Amino acid sequence: MLAYQRLIADGHLEARERSGVYSPDAPAGPRPVDPLGSSPGSAKGDGRGFAPPFAPLERVRYRIPPDWQSYRYPFIEGRYDKSLFPIAEWREASRLALAATEVEDWSLDNGEADDEMLIEEIRTKLLPRRGIAARRDEVLITVGEQQALFLASEILAGPGVVAGVENPGLPEMRELLMRRGAEIRGLAIDEAGLIVSEALRNCGLIYLSPSRQRPTGVTLPSSRRAALMAQVRETGAFVIEDDFECELNYFGDAPRALRSMPGGERVVYVASLAKVLAPGVRLGFMVADAPIIAAARRLRDLTTRRPSPNNQRAAAYFLALGHYESMVRRLAAIGEERLIALRDALNHYRPLSIDVAPVQGGTSYWVRGPADLQVEALLEAARARGVLIEPAWPYFLEPSEAGSVFRLGVTSLPAGRIRTGIAELSAAIRALKAVPVEAQPQPLSGDAVLSALSGARLLYNTVYGDPCVIDLHPDGRMSGRAGYANEDRDEGRWWMDGDVWRRQWSRWAYGEAAGFLVSLEGDRLSWLNSEGRRVDGAILTRPEP
Amino acid sequence: MLAYQRLIADGHLEARERSGVYSPDAPAGPRPVDPLGSSPGSAKGDGRGFAPPFAPLERVRYRIPPDWQSYRYPFIEGRYDKSLFPIAEWREASRLALAATEVEDWSLDNGEADDEMLIEEIRTKLLPRRGIAARRDEVLITVGEQQALFLASEILAGPGVVAGVENPGLPEMRELLMRRGAEIRGLAIDEAGLIVSEALRNCGLIYLSPSRQRPTGVTLPSSRRAALMAQVRETGAFVIEDDFECELNYFGDAPRALRSMPGGERVVYVASLAKVLAPGVRLGFMVADAPIIAAARRLRDLTTRRPSPNNQRAAAYFLALGHYESMVRRLAAIGEERLIALRDALNHYRPLSIDVAPVQGGTSYWVRGPADLQVEALLEAARARGVLIEPAWPYFLEPSEAGSVFRLGVTSLPAGRIRTGIAELSAAIRALKAVPVEAQPQPLSGDAVLSALSGARLLYNTVYGDPCVIDLHPDGRMSGRAGYANEDRDEGRWWMDGDVWRRQWSRWAYGEAAGFLVSLEGDRLSWLNSEGRRVDGAILTRPEP
Repeated sequence: MLAYQRLIADGHLEARERSGVYSPDAPAGPRPVDPLGSSPGSAKGDGRGFAPPFAPLERVRYRIPPDWQSYRYPFIEGRYDKSLFPIAEWREASRLALAATEVEDWSLDNGEADDEMLIEEIRTKLLPRRGIAARRDEVLITVGEQQALFLASEILAGPGVVAGVENPGLPEMRELLMRRGAEIRGLAIDEAGLIVSEALRNCGLIYLSPSRQRPTGVTLPSSRRAALMAQVRETGAFVIEDDFECELNYFGDAPRALRSMPGGERVVYVASLAKVLAPGVRLGFMVADAPIIAAARRLRDLTTRRPSPNNQRAAAYFLALGHYESMVRRLAAIGEERLIALRDALNHYRPLSIDVAPVQGGTSYWVRGPADLQVEALLEAARARGVLIEPAWPYFLEPSEAGSVFRLGVTSLPAGRIRTGIAELSAAIRALKAVPVEAQPQPLSGDAVLSALSGARLLYNTVYGDPCVIDLHPDGRMSGRAGYANEDRDEGRWWMDGDVWRRQWSRWAYGEAAGFLVSLEGDRLSWLNSEGRRVDGAILTRPEP
Repeated sequence: MLAYQRLIADGHLEARERSGVYSPDAPAGPRPVDPLGSSPGSAKGDGRGFAPPFAPLERVRYRIPPDWQSYRYPFIEGRYDKSLFPIAEWREASRLALAATEVEDWSLDNGEADDEMLIEEIRTKLLPRRGIAARRDEVLITVGEQQALFLASEILAGPGVVAGVENPGLPEMRELLMRRGAEIRGLAIDEAGLIVSEALRNCGLIYLSPSRQRPTGVTLPSSRRAALMAQVRETGAFVIEDDFECELNYFGDAPRALRSMPGGERVVYVASLAKVLAPGVRLGFMVADAPIIAAARRLRDLTTRRPSPNNQRAAAYFLALGHYESMVRRLAAIGEERLIALRDALNHYRPLSIDVAPVQGGTSYWVRGPADLQVEALLEAARARGVLIEPAWPYFLEPSEAGSVFRLGVTSLPAGRIRTGIAELSAAIRALKAVPVEAQPQPLSGDAVLSALSGARLLYNTVYGDPCVIDLHPDGRMSGRAGYANEDRDEGRWWMDGDVWRRQWSRWAYGEAAGFLVSLEGDRLSWLNSEGRRVDGAILTRPEP
């Protein structure tokens, strides 16, 4: 069994603003040049743009490239591949909600009230399964689970409140509580989730994810739940219960929700309406005592008003038709198949010595690599092989506590591709451990470059660490998208000049033309200067037609 | 012409927490009994219910009954009657967005990015009409306009910021700014909107609604816009431009948006995607400089994540198909017809001496009654005749400044019903001015009560001022809904005992049985005690089958 205290190596990594985690031992020499100039930094230096005086802090975080689908092995938890969305069922529910009489109903402005049909479906179908009995005035629909967490933080936390959060835990939750001026206290977890100890006694508010601990995926057993609730009844603390993925417990039984236990009147229960509908439809809900729901409703009214009534009605039909029930079963079957495939692959390739947290289900593994593994270096090496993995440091109060831990998720990866993905990841780890041989890249001929790059898509990382996608059209046009919301774009031209590949953007890289030699190793492209030294690189792909 | 300074009478009214506005001269005697016990107050005294420690303040406000559609003459601005929602067009757009390839697209989790098609439609179709040129990274989609106002307040206001707001103005905006710790400064308006004066020089942030001032409906002329922007360029203040109802200027031209004028880089432009889609679909947007949009996007990510991607795509098709364009034309035609009907009716019935603000369009009139008019008394008297009007006091920094002003809106009222509604309102005002003759109500016989009440719906106001709807089923069952979100419900039974109408709720009124005599004048029902004195009343309607 894996104890998370042992899991945490110390001092190998440090966090830097905007840039992620770096080894303090790495040389501090000059940064590589940015031959494509595609960083938003340079693009936005056009003299326009006032910064707001109270911008939220740019949290130190790992951001998944928006084009993660272009990678062959995206082991990214929580991003869903196309096959998981119940297209036919959602269309049926949406069409029912689009009937003329239905539209007349939901298009009316009834103020703050949620869709009655949806509330009833949640009360009578979803909540009883979690052991929760709720009145109508104890349920609130939210814009995804995220809004429920926001509303709960706003009304339960404030200056002077000591808020205990799982460590590692959800970074957004820490940020929400800090914005409220609460004092954050990290609560230790182990292989069974939150450790119920005296440390919790000082907390006026406790946030936890007992069904599937976020991010480790472990499940809090009934005995600890009872101990926690006994303590809460004594101390009078409020609890935010994030019932994440409660349905996907294929290796064990799901214990009762805290909200359903004695003392549950101090619990604000928060859930997503459907893990799979969530990214596209954005509905979640909150269950709590009526005065708390009333306060959350007032705040919801002030900050967004109601979640889309048309989606509320369609979701109600989705539940009423039994699609939710069968989708949960389907998801559980797929999740189980994928998680077992991941476990088998990790077991087979055993990339050096790794440990994984003992999950009872879910869609991810929390993995500890060897103590001297540099996770950031592994991220880069894996990405070069088309493998995306997620580092653990954003989940820790102190990023350096994460040590050599990372997470592998399977929500976006079919079972059949998991084994080869893990094989690639293992190779990347092995290569990292080997002493790097400085191979001299061999520049290609102009003809070879032309045939390799015409119509290609380059996956590139800017010098600031932002992702960037560049399409090289056969007709010599070139288009680029940069930033995590694809919000920065430019157009340009590329052409061959003998063996030299030349390009010119309209805004990026100051709009100046530049040329490089090109070498190619598999799908790893290198740009070389005139001396043949590598100045930067990218991954070469071809967009699907 | 109407000057708002003159409009404001002084000292006749005062605000009380939760209860609205009362005349300080009214007798302070015991409150009437609550024969139906339907107030949430009594229903919630069941020993369960922890209040959250940081509940938002219960703002003193006028709340529209959720069953406003049951009233024959709801002169309520911003609530839309069924005929205004473009059912067929929205269904077409939704169906396109439900095509399998489309669902595959929007159901993927692309992080923080908005729907590209929708951004393009807004950039290329909506914004140019307002004179605004915007890049992709200068537009953000929001959960209705309300979220745009919330995000703008959060990133532009904070402790130490003096925030100027129109007075009268949007109360939610004041509350959002106060939650941020900003110092609120009321900015005077007149018949042309915001008065641009030296008073604005101290403001670091200015919120205004120049296209259609909220709530008076007047339009800020170009000369004042230019003066405001000249001042902003000097002082460096930020501006939140709420471009409410910019399309409905049928009596005049719509001046250019502030965002499009010199100095516009300090303006955060906020709008609803479509006034009529808004209540059912909940989409709005914000246009500002890229760093402001980036900060708002981070905060949106933290508090709700993206607005429903499926609705974003459907709205994109709605725009692409030209439905938005034709809907705006249709809305303008309907709005113009209704506003003229309202003007004509006010002119014809001229309920005593009233003044109205000189609007250039929109869907409401801001009305000043005679100085000694008690607006709260008028609200009650009008409601008894099936007429809902909206008091002006919630819009003022000091509710007492509102004097005898109220608002009449036509978004929920067809033109054909406006004349009779105003006739009823005039009669109510006349009756208020007359010395009340204490007519002795005549109790009905048991048979008459039975036939009048069987299957009836009673619109009732609790002693706390909350609305309540009671359905008296023919089989003797009785069901009640109370509160502004219909969140408090109870079931009971009713029966006749000779001429006495008896009822018993399961929880309300302590679950005790009680009996009353009943009298009926038109649709105005009175409950009488055994001495024949009126103890309470309701409006009798019949629910549509």
